[in-house]
Amino acid sequence: MKCTILNIGDELLIGQTLNTNAAWMSQKMNEIGIDVIHHISLSDERNDIENCLNNALNDSTIVLITGGLGPTSDDITKQVLCDFFGGKLVFNDAAYKNIERIFEHRKKLIDEATRQVAFLPDNCLIIPNNNGTAAGMIFNKDGKTIVSMPGVPHEMKAMLYEALIPYLKQTYQLPFILHCNILTAGVGETQLASRLEQFEKNKHSEIKLAYLPSIGKVRLRLTIKGNDKLILEQHLSQAKSEVCHVIDDYIYGFEDDTLEQKIGALLLEKKYTLATAESCTGGYLAHLITSVAGSSSYYKGSIISYANETKENLLQVHKNTLLEYGAVSEQTVNEMLTGALHQLKTDVAIAISGIAGPDGGTTEKPVGTVFIGVGTHERKIIKRFALSSHRDRNIQAAGIFALEMLRKFLLNQLNE
Amino acid sequence: MKCTILNIGDELLIGQTLNTNAAWMSQKMNEIGIDVIHHISLSDERNDIENCLNNALNDSTIVLITGGLGPTSDDITKQVLCDFFGGKLVFNDAAYKNIERIFEHRKKLIDEATRQVAFLPDNCLIIPNNNGTAAGMIFNKDGKTIVSMPGVPHEMKAMLYEALIPYLKQTYQLPFILHCNILTAGVGETQLASRLEQFEKNKHSEIKLAYLPSIGKVRLRLTIKGNDKLILEQHLSQAKSEVCHVIDDYIYGFEDDTLEQKIGALLLEKKYTLATAESCTGGYLAHLITSVAGSSSYYKGSIISYANETKENLLQVHKNTLLEYGAVSEQTVNEMLTGALHQLKTDVAIAISGIAGPDGGTTEKPVGTVFIGVGTHERKIIKRFALSSHRDRNIQAAGIFALEMLRKFLLNQLNE
Repeated sequence: MKCTILNIGDELLIGQTLNTNAAWMSQKMNEIGIDVIHHISLSDERNDIENCLNNALNDSTIVLITGGLGPTSDDITKQVLCDFFGGKLVFNDAAYKNIERIFEHRKKLIDEATRQVAFLPDNCLIIPNNNGTAAGMIFNKDGKTIVSMPGVPHEMKAMLYEALIPYLKQTYQLPFILHCNILTAGVGETQLASRLEQFEKNKHSEIKLAYLPSIGKVRLRLTIKGNDKLILEQHLSQAKSEVCHVIDDYIYGFEDDTLEQKIGALLLEKKYTLATAESCTGGYLAHLITSVAGSSSYYKGSIISYANETKENLLQVHKNTLLEYGAVSEQTVNEMLTGALHQLKTDVAIAISGIAGPDGGTTEKPVGTVFIGVGTHERKIIKRFALSSHRDRNIQAAGIFALEMLRKFLLNQLNE
Repeated sequence: MKCTILNIGDELLIGQTLNTNAAWMSQKMNEIGIDVIHHISLSDERNDIENCLNNALNDSTIVLITGGLGPTSDDITKQVLCDFFGGKLVFNDAAYKNIERIFEHRKKLIDEATRQVAFLPDNCLIIPNNNGTAAGMIFNKDGKTIVSMPGVPHEMKAMLYEALIPYLKQTYQLPFILHCNILTAGVGETQLASRLEQFEKNKHSEIKLAYLPSIGKVRLRLTIKGNDKLILEQHLSQAKSEVCHVIDDYIYGFEDDTLEQKIGALLLEKKYTLATAESCTGGYLAHLITSVAGSSSYYKGSIISYANETKENLLQVHKNTLLEYGAVSEQTVNEMLTGALHQLKTDVAIAISGIAGPDGGTTEKPVGTVFIGVGTHERKIIKRFALSSHRDRNIQAAGIFALEMLRKFLLNQLNE
C-alpha cells in the first residue's frame, strides 16, 4: 500500500517554514502499514496541483494533501480538487456552524471570505475540523483515496487521528506493524546501546530496535511487521520485557507517557505537594510541570530567582553563601531547596542553579555547569551536571534531568 | 529560472529525519533569484530516481539532488546519474587523496567500499568535499544544470557556498528576489487582512504579500522579483513603509527579531527591571523572557503562584479578593501585579491568571478566560482575553499576549 504526501504552500518552497508535517504524517502512515514513497512540496498553482496529483495517482493508492484551505485568495486547493473530481461547491451547514462557534468564542463577526470556507465539494466525505475553520475532505476514485487537510499542524494532526486513520483502516486491508516505545531519561544513547548489545545479538530477526534521542531523553522503539497479529504481539511483548529487564532503572514510561505526567502520578500516590526554585532554567521546569492538566492538585508554585537579590529576599539564601560559594554551587542550591520548601510550604521541592550560557562561564565552572537539588526537609540530594555550550539545550536538559531526579527520589520514598 | 530539489533517503520517507536541507537550499536559491518549484523526497531506487529526474528536467533549469552518495550498497545516486547522462566511473586521484587525508586524521584504514567512493563519473564537473569523503557532481545537459551533493547538512552547505552558487552565477543571468518580513503579535490574520485591503488593491503588481500565522503572532512577508536590484529595493521599501503605516501598532519587529528580545531592548533603554507573577501560564512567560541571553540584566524573577495559598503567602493577594472575585479575575490579577512589584522590587511587572483548561471553566468564565496585567506602581493595565479550549495553546498565547501588552506599555512610557 503506497502513499504520496503533497504539501502545498509557498512558505515551504522559499524555505521559511520547515516541512514538519511530511515527516510526522509519514510516521503515522508507517504505523498502520502504509509506505510513503514521495513527499512533494509545491505551490498554490492550479496546473501544478493537478499535475502533481495525476503523477501521485499513478503510483500511489493514497494521496495526502495539506495546505491551501484558508480564506485568502491564494488558497485554491479546495476548488482545484472539487473540479478535478468533477464536483461543485455547496454550502455546508455543519461547517458553517463550526465557523460560527469559533467566531462566537473569539467574539468576532464572520466576514465574507470566511463564510466562503463553509462552501465544500459535493463529491467528497467531509472531515470536521474541531480546531479551526477549514474542513478536511476525503475523495475516492478508482479505489484510491485522496485526502485534503489544513496545513496548520495541530488541525491536521487531530483530523488524521480522529478521522483519517479510522477511515483507512476500515477501507483497506492493511498489514500489521506493531510498535512499542520504551522511554528513558538521564542516560545517553551510547550507554543504552552498550547495555543492550546482548539483546541486539539474540533478538528475533523480525524485531527492529531504533534509538530516537532528544534532549535529555532517549526513546527506544521496537517494531515488528507481518500478517498474524497474535504472533507479532507475542514476539513484541517478549522483546519488550527483555529490554526492560536490562535498562529498568532508566525507564520512566512507555508510549505517550511524559515524564511530567509520571511525576504527577507519583506525587498523587505519595500525597506530596511540590514546589520549585529555579535560576538558570528560568521557568522552564515549572512550565514542564504545569503542562500537565490537573497539576494544580499537587504543584503549589515556584520562585524563579533569576537575580541573586531574589534568592536572598524570597528564598532566604544567605548573602554569605552567595559570596563564598557563588550562585552556582551546591551550597546555594541546598539553601534554595530549603527556601522553596519553607516558603511554598510543600512536602518536596526541586531547586536548580547553573550557567546556561553563552556568557558567565569560568574555568572552574564553565557554561553548562548546573546544580540540581531535590528533596524534603529530611532528605536532600544535590547533583552537579556538566551540560553543553548551548543556552537553549542547557535549559531544556536541566529541566528534564531535574524531573528525572525527582522521579527517582519519589520512587525511593515509595519503596521505603 | 526554476529549480527542483530532490532529497534521496529512506530516513526522510519514514519520518525519522526532518528534511531541513530542502528548506535551507530553497532560501539560498531564492537569494540568488532562483525559484524553487518543488521539493521531492524519494528513496534509493534506480527507477524512481530516473523518473523524478526526468520530471524535474521537464519544468526546471536547475535540479539539485542530495543523498545517496555514501559507501554502502543502498547508495546508488552516483551510478544512476553517471548512467543517466551516458558516462562511466573513473578513478579520481584528487578525490582519493581527500579520502586518505580524512582517514589518516581518523586513524582508520581505507576499506574497499570507501575506495569505491573515489570512482567518479567522467561526464561531470567534480565539487571537492572538504568535510567528508563523497565528492559533489555538476552535470550539464541542454543548458540545464543537475547537481548531486551529500545529504549530510554541513557537507552540502559548504559545497553550495563554495562551488555551486559561484557556478550558477557564472553560468546563468539571474534575477533578484527580495523579501521583507514584518512581525506582528496580538492580532489575527483576518483583522490584519481587513486593515490591509486598500494596500492589497493599490500595491505594485510585482509585490506579493503573504500571511504566516503562528500562536499569538502573524508574520507578513513582502516579496518582489526582477532584474534591477535598485528599483526592486525601492518598490519593496515603499511597500514596507505603506504596510507599516497601516498596522504600525501591531508590529513588534522585522526579519529575525523576537518579541522577547525586543522587550529586553526596551527594558534596557528605559533602565527598568522586570518581575512576573504567573498562575495559568505556570512559568511559560518566565521561560520566554529568560530564553534571551543577557536577560539577567533586567529580569529579576517570578513568583509562580499556582495555588491560591501561594498567591496569598507570596504575592499578598487578599483572601477576601480570592473569595469574592475568584483567582481568575481583574481584582486578583491587580493584586498579583502589586505583589510582584513589591516582592521582587522591580520597576515593572506582569501578572497572569486564567483558566488554561481542560477543566475549571464555568459559564461566566469558560476555559480560555485569561486576565493579564502589566504595569508599574503608578500605572496598571489589565485586560481580559477569551482564548481557545486547548491547554497548551492557551498557555502559549497568554505568554505572547502578555509580552505584547508589556511592549505597548513600555513604548507608551518611552513616548511620554
